[in-house]
Amino acid sequence: MADVKEFKVIGTRPIRHDGVDKVTGRALYGGDIRLTGMLHGKVLRSPHAHARIKSINIKKALALPGVKAVVTGKDLPGAADRIAELGEGAVNLKYLSNNVLAGDKVLYKGHAVAAVAAVNAHVAEEALALIDVKYEVLPPVLDVREAMKDGAPLLLPELKTKSLGQKTETPSNVASHLQFKKGDPEKGFREADVIVEKEFFTATVHQGYIETHNATALWSPDGQLTVWVSTQGAFTVRQQLSELLNLPVSKIKVVPMEIGGGFGGKIRVYIEPVAAILSKRTGKPVKIIMTRTEVLEGTGPTPGSYIRVKIGANKQGKLTAAEAYLAYEAGAYPGSPVGAGAMCIFAPYDLENAQVDGYDVVVNKPQTSAYRAPGATNAALAETLIDEIAEKLKIDPIDLRLRNAAKEGTRRLDGPVFPRIGCVEVLEATKNHPHYTAPLGGPNRGRGVAIGFWFNVGLKSSASASVNSDGTVSLMEGSTDIGGSRTTAAMHVAEEMGIAAEDVKPTVGDTDQVGYTDVTGGSRVTFATGWACYEVAQDLKRQLCERAAKLWEISSDDVAYEDGACVSKSDTGKRITFKELTQKLDDTGGPVVGRATVDPQGVGGAFAANIVDVEVDPDTGKTQVLRFTVVQDAGKAIHPSYVEGQMQGGSVQGIGWALNEEYFYDAKGVMRNASLLDYRMPTCLDLPMIDTVIIEVPNPGHPYGVRGVGEVPIIPPAAAVANAIYHATGVRMDRLPMSPGRVLEEILKKKG
Amino acid sequence: MADVKEFKVIGTRPIRHDGVDKVTGRALYGGDIRLTGMLHGKVLRSPHAHARIKSINIKKALALPGVKAVVTGKDLPGAADRIAELGEGAVNLKYLSNNVLAGDKVLYKGHAVAAVAAVNAHVAEEALALIDVKYEVLPPVLDVREAMKDGAPLLLPELKTKSLGQKTETPSNVASHLQFKKGDPEKGFREADVIVEKEFFTATVHQGYIETHNATALWSPDGQLTVWVSTQGAFTVRQQLSELLNLPVSKIKVVPMEIGGGFGGKIRVYIEPVAAILSKRTGKPVKIIMTRTEVLEGTGPTPGSYIRVKIGANKQGKLTAAEAYLAYEAGAYPGSPVGAGAMCIFAPYDLENAQVDGYDVVVNKPQTSAYRAPGATNAALAETLIDEIAEKLKIDPIDLRLRNAAKEGTRRLDGPVFPRIGCVEVLEATKNHPHYTAPLGGPNRGRGVAIGFWFNVGLKSSASASVNSDGTVSLMEGSTDIGGSRTTAAMHVAEEMGIAAEDVKPTVGDTDQVGYTDVTGGSRVTFATGWACYEVAQDLKRQLCERAAKLWEISSDDVAYEDGACVSKSDTGKRITFKELTQKLDDTGGPVVGRATVDPQGVGGAFAANIVDVEVDPDTGKTQVLRFTVVQDAGKAIHPSYVEGQMQGGSVQGIGWALNEEYFYDAKGVMRNASLLDYRMPTCLDLPMIDTVIIEVPNPGHPYGVRGVGEVPIIPPAAAVANAIYHATGVRMDRLPMSPGRVLEEILKKKG
Repeated sequence: MADVKEFKVIGTRPIRHDGVDKVTGRALYGGDIRLTGMLHGKVLRSPHAHARIKSINIKKALALPGVKAVVTGKDLPGAADRIAELGEGAVNLKYLSNNVLAGDKVLYKGHAVAAVAAVNAHVAEEALALIDVKYEVLPPVLDVREAMKDGAPLLLPELKTKSLGQKTETPSNVASHLQFKKGDPEKGFREADVIVEKEFFTATVHQGYIETHNATALWSPDGQLTVWVSTQGAFTVRQQLSELLNLPVSKIKVVPMEIGGGFGGKIRVYIEPVAAILSKRTGKPVKIIMTRTEVLEGTGPTPGSYIRVKIGANKQGKLTAAEAYLAYEAGAYPGSPVGAGAMCIFAPYDLENAQVDGYDVVVNKPQTSAYRAPGATNAALAETLIDEIAEKLKIDPIDLRLRNAAKEGTRRLDGPVFPRIGCVEVLEATKNHPHYTAPLGGPNRGRGVAIGFWFNVGLKSSASASVNSDGTVSLMEGSTDIGGSRTTAAMHVAEEMGIAAEDVKPTVGDTDQVGYTDVTGGSRVTFATGWACYEVAQDLKRQLCERAAKLWEISSDDVAYEDGACVSKSDTGKRITFKELTQKLDDTGGPVVGRATVDPQGVGGAFAANIVDVEVDPDTGKTQVLRFTVVQDAGKAIHPSYVEGQMQGGSVQGIGWALNEEYFYDAKGVMRNASLLDYRMPTCLDLPMIDTVIIEVPNPGHPYGVRGVGEVPIIPPAAAVANAIYHATGVRMDRLPMSPGRVLEEILKKKG
Repeated sequence: MADVKEFKVIGTRPIRHDGVDKVTGRALYGGDIRLTGMLHGKVLRSPHAHARIKSINIKKALALPGVKAVVTGKDLPGAADRIAELGEGAVNLKYLSNNVLAGDKVLYKGHAVAAVAAVNAHVAEEALALIDVKYEVLPPVLDVREAMKDGAPLLLPELKTKSLGQKTETPSNVASHLQFKKGDPEKGFREADVIVEKEFFTATVHQGYIETHNATALWSPDGQLTVWVSTQGAFTVRQQLSELLNLPVSKIKVVPMEIGGGFGGKIRVYIEPVAAILSKRTGKPVKIIMTRTEVLEGTGPTPGSYIRVKIGANKQGKLTAAEAYLAYEAGAYPGSPVGAGAMCIFAPYDLENAQVDGYDVVVNKPQTSAYRAPGATNAALAETLIDEIAEKLKIDPIDLRLRNAAKEGTRRLDGPVFPRIGCVEVLEATKNHPHYTAPLGGPNRGRGVAIGFWFNVGLKSSASASVNSDGTVSLMEGSTDIGGSRTTAAMHVAEEMGIAAEDVKPTVGDTDQVGYTDVTGGSRVTFATGWACYEVAQDLKRQLCERAAKLWEISSDDVAYEDGACVSKSDTGKRITFKELTQKLDDTGGPVVGRATVDPQGVGGAFAANIVDVEVDPDTGKTQVLRFTVVQDAGKAIHPSYVEGQMQGGSVQGIGWALNEEYFYDAKGVMRNASLLDYRMPTCLDLPMIDTVIIEVPNPGHPYGVRGVGEVPIIPPAAAVANAIYHATGVRMDRLPMSPGRVLEEILKKKG
């Protein structure tokens, strides 16, 4: 579909419509909601990483003046009663429900056990201390390999996976095993001149959004539930609430407030259903806001993982075979993103022989959640092996990648055949970037490169629009705006209508106001919601042509919409601009509104590569990032500033994974760094400017060639930094984060 | 268009969707808006009915701690500077602007002169007293006939109308003169056997909505203005603000809050632009709420009027000629509803010869505004003349009306030819109603009848909808819901989709969320917004048929939507219900959303007749309404309870006009009863149950036959009560209200 088009709005950088509201503090976030008679909720959380709940006594808490209600897991409609209705989904619903408020067991420190609604947050907090929970403490298991061992403490009795396709009667912590295979890896390894193999370890890390989770619920006596919430997907919250509360979706209105970051972590519900049942119980609106510690301990970080990868190559630099074993921590309930890791790990390479095995394993940590290209960053640490092979073969590492680069027609290990992709273009641009050949300029410095792939998703989006008499369009769409997507949505309409982006006024609707729209995630918003907006414009244009035909008393078949105007195809003298026509709608049938929904196929995957220079202090092991360049294929960059923002943000998070971030657990499974002071995310003081290079290899499956840009930039940084550290120090790091202590340890080990 | 249809939802009485929220106090009205940093505004109003403003000194007020801004008329963009751009509209804009904040003159007691924004309402009020306004007091003119005399005090120098089509160089208080004429009235009067002629006087009365005017404005530094307001039309507020503030409509978002009554009085803006400029000045949100006295003195009541009517009839009971002279008080600025009065006064009658002259006259009272069938209630007081003729000719008054009743093909005096109407049916049902022949049951009692006509309007409405996976539809429409219109809107969608009204969830959108929609007024919402919802359903059905075709792998031409299901026209075995299909949307292309706009022609006028029994206390002149029946043609009653509610509400307001309500002015033009205690509206303690009879003569111009029901019931009560008083006492009242003192005076006069 994507022709080479001349764009007028697409590719420019208009000021974002919500900019002033956000920088002046006028934008309304979940924390800003205040309703008459509103109560405040607080959640009691487990002090143990693994325990059986023997009893919960709420009497004293209920008796505290100002306390209006106390609820526990028993107050959620039980999934167990609904197995007939829900089938196999009942198990997942039970997990979701038990994660919201624990059932008979707590599975991680911070697991929600009970909740209080009170006249203010202080009383609610005081009441938490009066809830008497009797626990039978059980041994926790925190590491994925420990959890897979026979005799490990077991979290969920119904899990009985042993390995692929095998179920045993012996309970296990393995929730599932998946395998992708292509060609004959054994044969491939036999053909190899060089084989590298390594184990990798990545830490549990959090998305680290600045705004903590919040939810305000009002359950009206007529059974209508309204929830104001910071979420990546209002409809997804609605769906989960519908299941958890056994309430039809149409009885629930979810109002998405502005969001202070999500990165995948604000999709699953936590406190939303709790606020809802507290509201139902009290008849009042109930607001819950998490503390930072609750966010770290009680929401969904991305999994720690154990990864073993083996790659073979011949002397010509052709990768002959690759194998990977991925074991990802699901946290307390199944659902790690190991599948996505398995899809992405070898995707930049055109491999004849490869196999990936992935294991989803429960451990006594919070249930993991999506986090920007979930699962792929862990796996991409194995990109360091490509660097090792290049070194052994004395081939430039980018050249090695180019010799094996995936391209149109390459079949991915997980099945799909690549359409036109930009892997080669990204690698070439990386190689040709001045950074790649610039002098390092000092001792203890090294340069690393790496590449990453993310498939992106499409999913469903809806939009509607109405034409204003002043030559503008009001646009409603359903995607939570995290990175400027209101403006990119508006730009699609502006481009098609031939007007300025400022003349389209975008609004994000709630679940009663706009058609179903999936989450802001999967790098899908510009791709799919943008497409919905493109289609809305087609709907408007069709109607405007009919209006022009009416004005001119000609057939609407004779009218086309070109360059912001209706024109007669047969009479070049007949032309009326959009702005002029908007003033004549009253005379030609009234207002014009448009609508569209899309569920687009044609998703285009994206590649990002990094060049990173580091200096490692040989005395402390501290790594300083000196220069960082990210090259990424956007397909088509709708608003280049926001694309660059995504590239920079993703890179910085990747650097955080690489150097600093981890959940630090003690032996009892208690997180010892549950604050942003101790959970160390990089700040701008730690970082150089992240230089960006946008490559545009149009996605043939999208009208403008859009691919999606949000996720892929987080994938290569950890490997690129590891490669740079190697070239600075001579030590190959195999464990994230590569914190000063660990790097120093490896340096000392190497020195002997 | 309207076939006799079998309805499943239309004509039933579902519970209103917003009912629980409203009775539990959860519904959000303008008064509920609280924004961070919000200031409170108060308006300084003129103590004089007519004065020149010599100077306004705001220094002391500005110096008061807590005061953040003081504005006057000079702070509104001057219309004078924009004459080139606005043409003749500049004069109207100047009037609107000067009514919002006075220019060089104040024209009525209560006229807004300046406004203050302060940290709270008390400080703002205190500051008002510190604003020093120097006035040159001018003589006021309060009565329409006085205002028309030579030498009357003149309000607006640019008014120079003398009479029809004549402009003189002599300024005048007459803003305009209109005339409708048909046949040869002089000839008609020559053919008459009996001629009656009388002068009538009606008082200035207020709509009396319970919720006072309120507005909260936030003018963002990026030039976006948001206004939360109680209004009958968010888009109309947007348009007025656009003109008054010289700001494009797309820069303004108007959020219609729930409304506590409007009746026509919440269409023109008063405090909305004031809150806006105070917000612009301070950079903070500013909220203004009127007091009851401000509402009565400073908003738009309906005009007092002087009416002279002459009607002739022959012995056979045929009306041979009619003439009316209507002089309506416009209040401070032109724009009384005299035109509508002129359209309606003789409309129930098929007259060969008639003439109406209408005069719009400015006086020193608040600028009049719309009030339920504006202008028609005043004029319909002349229905007492029909009673006089009937008495003189000894013909039953309903029979007299039936002999002359307007019907399909009758040309109205103002031009249009009636399509199918229900005048005869309403009169016949009135005559056949048991009330008409029931014994009066006591002395000093009398029974009166009267009929009224209202033309109703269409105008523009928009709606959009989305289908939910639980077999329901979320509906967005743009009409402020005053009398249950959310539910009637939902019922249109439900009827067409073949689902329950409860399965359609209606929401009223703001000006950014929904397509342009005109005011809730003119009895148009059920007619036009209902029609938009009907069309939305057609759009949904078309798309659902395409989805079913996809599922069945057949052509969508072969699929029809019948009885809540898609069916194959060629294969009777293929049928999928709406509920089933909503679960399969994901597999067939994603969500389904619909949209529609309408600007419908085919408006159908409506008739209402009353039978009223009164008892008049001969010692005090107090009139007690004993029994009241209203018969009205609804065309098609979508939700009969709400139709009955409109009939009852309109009747009660008409009774208020008849017996109690008036602006009582002293000689200086100061309203002496500016509170609801003194401005006496009827309460349920004053009234019997209002019995209703809905007649359904389908409007051929609407898919379901809807006519509109909100306004016509207010028209006949005053005349019906006057006729009843005559039959109880023998005195014919010619002045509203027929308060005890006035009735007693007439009784005593008659006694001599």
